[in-house]
Amino acid sequence: MNSQKTLKVGMLGCGVVGSEVARLIVANQSDLAARSGAKLELVKVGVRNLNRANISKELLTTDLESIVKDANIDLIIEVIGGIEPARSLILSAFENGKSVVTANKALLAKHGGELFAAADKNGVDLYYEASVAGAIPILRPLRESLVGDRVQRVMGIVNGTTNFILTKMDESGAAFGDALKEAQSLGFAEADPTADVEGFDAAAKAAILAGLAFHSRVTDADVFREGISNITAMDVAVAKSLDLVVKLLAIAELSDGKISVRVHPTLISRSHPLAAVREAFNAVFVESESAGAMMFYGRGAGGAPTASAILGDLVAVARHRVSGGLGPRESDYADLAIAPMGSTKTRYLIRLDVADRPGVLAAVAQTFAKHEVSIQTVRQTGRGDNAELIVMTHKASDAALASTVADLSSLDAVKDVASVIRVEGMGA
Amino acid sequence: MNSQKTLKVGMLGCGVVGSEVARLIVANQSDLAARSGAKLELVKVGVRNLNRANISKELLTTDLESIVKDANIDLIIEVIGGIEPARSLILSAFENGKSVVTANKALLAKHGGELFAAADKNGVDLYYEASVAGAIPILRPLRESLVGDRVQRVMGIVNGTTNFILTKMDESGAAFGDALKEAQSLGFAEADPTADVEGFDAAAKAAILAGLAFHSRVTDADVFREGISNITAMDVAVAKSLDLVVKLLAIAELSDGKISVRVHPTLISRSHPLAAVREAFNAVFVESESAGAMMFYGRGAGGAPTASAILGDLVAVARHRVSGGLGPRESDYADLAIAPMGSTKTRYLIRLDVADRPGVLAAVAQTFAKHEVSIQTVRQTGRGDNAELIVMTHKASDAALASTVADLSSLDAVKDVASVIRVEGMGA
Repeated sequence: MNSQKTLKVGMLGCGVVGSEVARLIVANQSDLAARSGAKLELVKVGVRNLNRANISKELLTTDLESIVKDANIDLIIEVIGGIEPARSLILSAFENGKSVVTANKALLAKHGGELFAAADKNGVDLYYEASVAGAIPILRPLRESLVGDRVQRVMGIVNGTTNFILTKMDESGAAFGDALKEAQSLGFAEADPTADVEGFDAAAKAAILAGLAFHSRVTDADVFREGISNITAMDVAVAKSLDLVVKLLAIAELSDGKISVRVHPTLISRSHPLAAVREAFNAVFVESESAGAMMFYGRGAGGAPTASAILGDLVAVARHRVSGGLGPRESDYADLAIAPMGSTKTRYLIRLDVADRPGVLAAVAQTFAKHEVSIQTVRQTGRGDNAELIVMTHKASDAALASTVADLSSLDAVKDVASVIRVEGMGA
Repeated sequence: MNSQKTLKVGMLGCGVVGSEVARLIVANQSDLAARSGAKLELVKVGVRNLNRANISKELLTTDLESIVKDANIDLIIEVIGGIEPARSLILSAFENGKSVVTANKALLAKHGGELFAAADKNGVDLYYEASVAGAIPILRPLRESLVGDRVQRVMGIVNGTTNFILTKMDESGAAFGDALKEAQSLGFAEADPTADVEGFDAAAKAAILAGLAFHSRVTDADVFREGISNITAMDVAVAKSLDLVVKLLAIAELSDGKISVRVHPTLISRSHPLAAVREAFNAVFVESESAGAMMFYGRGAGGAPTASAILGDLVAVARHRVSGGLGPRESDYADLAIAPMGSTKTRYLIRLDVADRPGVLAAVAQTFAKHEVSIQTVRQTGRGDNAELIVMTHKASDAALASTVADLSSLDAVKDVASVIRVEGMGA
């Protein structure tokens, strides 16, 4: 092993993650050299504001374009996030022969195809472990370990904020708003929590996971998305009484050659491995033809975990520079069709506020039958003004269920369709 | 991508796993070609008995040495298991320039150092994902994803047989013998279950995991080993009453620059992610400096899961043949010292059958104090002839605990030291 060689690294951005990456490159220098075959030296850091405390001034520049064009730099780490200028800078880095490690989920979910094609054309690597589920190694398992297998389905808890909120609601019976406030006060949720609670963040990750799982091009525009802000304490309590738990899942599955990819609140059994994933932890549950069920669990965010994922990628692209070779190509991905949400089949749990009188159940059952939605169980709780029907269906298409719900709403006996939540992992 | 190139594969052995590998190489041919960059063709299969049904006769040979020396063959899959002739055949394959994929945990745990050095010397790959935790991708996460991080501890449920038995004991209150019989009747345990229940299988995997985690050479002879055959229904019931569960864990940790590596029955909290790993499933829980806690979960054995892991490795070594490069080198591993078991510190749960009379607790407590083993909680259950003390210690060295137990046994008031089980994952 030639430990004499030095590879020069340029970093775009230096926030929480970038600072930690810079620290670890120095702190773990000898380990990184032993494992990559080259000394890794951080030589330039592109920032908006030069007045930063924890990076030596001579490394800093506000001219990010100069970093990706610098002929002395071999490898680029991109941690600025967002679409532009990240996209243009990465493309420019490729054209200048540099491999790139990025944590940018939004960019990959939108422009992954363009970026992978450009990396391939220029004979360089694009690694992005940190973009999905933070420190959990999921890129290599899906891209490399399972490459001789066929993935059938991926279900992930990929957003720590919503999982923290749902854990609080489940464990203390809190309302959504109170759980959100607690998450905000503890730093697990932003002042404007929209990107997390409405599922935008999870949708970007769902697109990346779907692409990896099925070796096909998937963008965030392909992802059906529903957030958790309508989940009530009552939904959580009813789930609990049925030995279920509500999780915001990113789901990608292949059926009849089409990819279904979606993010929505989902009821799963408490004995499902994903049910035990608490607070801000993330996990990705994978089902494949030969390997069967697998799960990858860990911290989905945070400076140190994300930095760990970036350094693992940095060693990989550095090793390719030293000893030749490239990571798996993704430019030859298939272009499988995306199944429309209306044709996606899941089970549903539906709660109806109903009049407490004879004939109600018959009218309700008839409405489900009319749309060929098969009922597995129905349970009445409460009496009088508080009467409620809890219906668990067998698998039905989203379109059939929507028509059923519309008809139920117009029934005299149904005062309100209190909630409709999809159910996964419990058979047909 | 050049899909024209063909790489020829020779396989040593053709049992349950080998047959499934052979089937998948044909069934997934176009996927494998797209992902490795070459058509993969199985051209020779070495077996002891030519009268096999499911492989075409012209592929079979009983001359295994001829396969590893065949100049037309590029890659070797080794699934015969055991030490010899597997070791000599793999070394010969390396000398003949062939990369090797193996599922042979016993061989790696004993001769890993020699094999990695030989692979490196000959500029070929040795991949072995299938050797630990079957289909669970753990090799790449530890060898590649976490390479820029520092692993502190690995705790794994790596033997499906013992986990099945312990799950049955926990869920139905069965005795060890009855749970073992159930495992045998369902095919989860061998007629001679020694390798599984006494921890030999787990010890080999512990050695491989420790080596991967700490980039140091560890063999099965370094592993402290204690099986589960002494675990009683009462141990399990007491654990349950304390919200704990008994698991056979393979544990590797680094402290003061020394590696502690051991396999023994372990009490963990029911809220620990490993506690939810039921029946024959495996899981590896990893704690690292930056990434924090992670867990990898899935099927640890079986033909199809193991074959999936082998095919993932086969694609990796094939890709290196097509586009250059090699996997991570392991020949430059460190040679960290192995901590003697006596100095390893854990917490303990100790059950003592005691005389039900004043002064017993004082005598017992004094014995712990004499050896500087600090007690966290003590609880008396039963009265009269059934009086029992349940003691949970703080962390103590194995040596101090052994001396304590020896002294306790000789106390008049202690009729029997009913059990001593280590406790992990619950702080100091």
